[in-house]
Amino acid sequence: MVRLRLIYLDHNATTPLDPRVLEEMTPYLTEHFGNASSLSHSWGLEAARAVDVARQRVAAAIGATPEEILFTSGATESDNMAIKGAAWAAVAAGQTGRHIVTSSIEHRAVLESCAFLATHGFHITHVPVDSAAMVDPGDVRRAITDGTILISIMHANSEVGTIQPVSEIGAIAREHGIPFHVDATQTVGKLPVDVEDLKADLVAFSGHKIYGPKGIGCLYVRRRRRLVPLHSGGGQEKGRRSGTYNTPGIVGIGKACELAGEDLLVEAGRTRDLSRRFFSQIQSRIEGVTLNGHPERRLPN
Amino acid sequence: MVRLRLIYLDHNATTPLDPRVLEEMTPYLTEHFGNASSLSHSWGLEAARAVDVARQRVAAAIGATPEEILFTSGATESDNMAIKGAAWAAVAAGQTGRHIVTSSIEHRAVLESCAFLATHGFHITHVPVDSAAMVDPGDVRRAITDGTILISIMHANSEVGTIQPVSEIGAIAREHGIPFHVDATQTVGKLPVDVEDLKADLVAFSGHKIYGPKGIGCLYVRRRRRLVPLHSGGGQEKGRRSGTYNTPGIVGIGKACELAGEDLLVEAGRTRDLSRRFFSQIQSRIEGVTLNGHPERRLPN
Repeated sequence: MVRLRLIYLDHNATTPLDPRVLEEMTPYLTEHFGNASSLSHSWGLEAARAVDVARQRVAAAIGATPEEILFTSGATESDNMAIKGAAWAAVAAGQTGRHIVTSSIEHRAVLESCAFLATHGFHITHVPVDSAAMVDPGDVRRAITDGTILISIMHANSEVGTIQPVSEIGAIAREHGIPFHVDATQTVGKLPVDVEDLKADLVAFSGHKIYGPKGIGCLYVRRRRRLVPLHSGGGQEKGRRSGTYNTPGIVGIGKACELAGEDLLVEAGRTRDLSRRFFSQIQSRIEGVTLNGHPERRLPN
Repeated sequence: MVRLRLIYLDHNATTPLDPRVLEEMTPYLTEHFGNASSLSHSWGLEAARAVDVARQRVAAAIGATPEEILFTSGATESDNMAIKGAAWAAVAAGQTGRHIVTSSIEHRAVLESCAFLATHGFHITHVPVDSAAMVDPGDVRRAITDGTILISIMHANSEVGTIQPVSEIGAIAREHGIPFHVDATQTVGKLPVDVEDLKADLVAFSGHKIYGPKGIGCLYVRRRRRLVPLHSGGGQEKGRRSGTYNTPGIVGIGKACELAGEDLLVEAGRTRDLSRRFFSQIQSRIEGVTLNGHPERRLPN
């Protein structure tokens, strides 16, 4: 009898929860259930303390300060908040520019947020990519106009894995004084991500791609960078993202970031070896197979 | 020695997770971790099936059909999505009206969403409340203009507990063909909530107030009622709310709704007795204490 062992290979769609993450979350799913905004009793204070620790861990993982980390429901919300929030902030500040530069291969959370803004008077330039799915920073520079209020380029593509020249693009954005958003959903936890190296003002990522929980994400917002909130309301996150704190999820993404930092180099080496072996086996057995994306500047997995 | 037993009395801020809810969520935090949109493998299919079951349970709890239930990150997102989504949908449909009617005592998620729209050309009428914190449906009727594109009135207030005459207001909205949004965060699980009785087109609520998890909520959207998405992106929830499904959270709110339905009458009686006893004890021992809100039309707890 032949036994088939099922092997899960869809980690770029979602990952299982690391048991160490679940262990850290469990008390916040049971006894420590308080509302992290209810600071008048011990249940609330315990939750607030856990949110603080998680925020420090996430900040440490990407070279940010805790005040620059906002918790969201996932990368989709983070991307929407970054793009729509920056656009509405430009309007609120009385800027007349209504132009955004992005690429043609962004995640749909970015492309559709831009498409929404296009129905509200914004103009979007989608810079092209080459045959290896790479954006040319020169194309970004040439796309900039006097009215450009945001540049949004992903760190690495979710389907072909090409890593974009994000620091070069960040330097161009900075030179022009334009906020720069990076969707880093596919790189946080797989590559070293440092907001200073990226020269990014806004960085989005989620928990469930780094062995953390679903339903939780982060948006890095550089100090003094203003956004109009996507979720208006009770004023949590200093008014920048309202909604009751999802304490177990926040604790989970904090722990996942901490573990990702510890495991990053080992894990990247392991998955890079595995994916090279996987591809070379496929190539040796099936004719005419080519690898999509860039042969070297790609995600290790 | 005097032993103090701490008793948690802040259930309108958040509730503990019911152990039966956590038990149902646990497999989706561990082995069933698939992405509910990855329908090409068994991990994804298992998650998708669980999302379907939860959607049926939520729908059954409020007299809706499963297709009318969207999962969000909480009531704040649901309120933002309802109000901003209805406003942008009116713009997208070429309607020229830019007027919204709400009350002066709504949750801040409603008030701040309206305030955001006020910076984008919308006019907001805040109908007043009487000394028992009640809205007069006549005031809502008189506030309606040719340009009214949305009415938003909460089911019950989170601080004083007064239950609003929502069905009467819903009937007025329907008579004028205006979408009607109800923030039911404080009533789902405490009172029978039926979308037909409420005559509501949009109903928002969350998991963590009904012994379900934090970081999950629902928006009921009446069939054929169009909203522009708050979270643009990958097209989950038939394009109405993008973002990877938070399967454990969805399973949790589904179970919490099921349990709330079973426990509703027993629990409402118990908390009503407890809160009457609590208030009469306070009144008998401390002079000059009065009960805020309506003496009879109030939440049982």
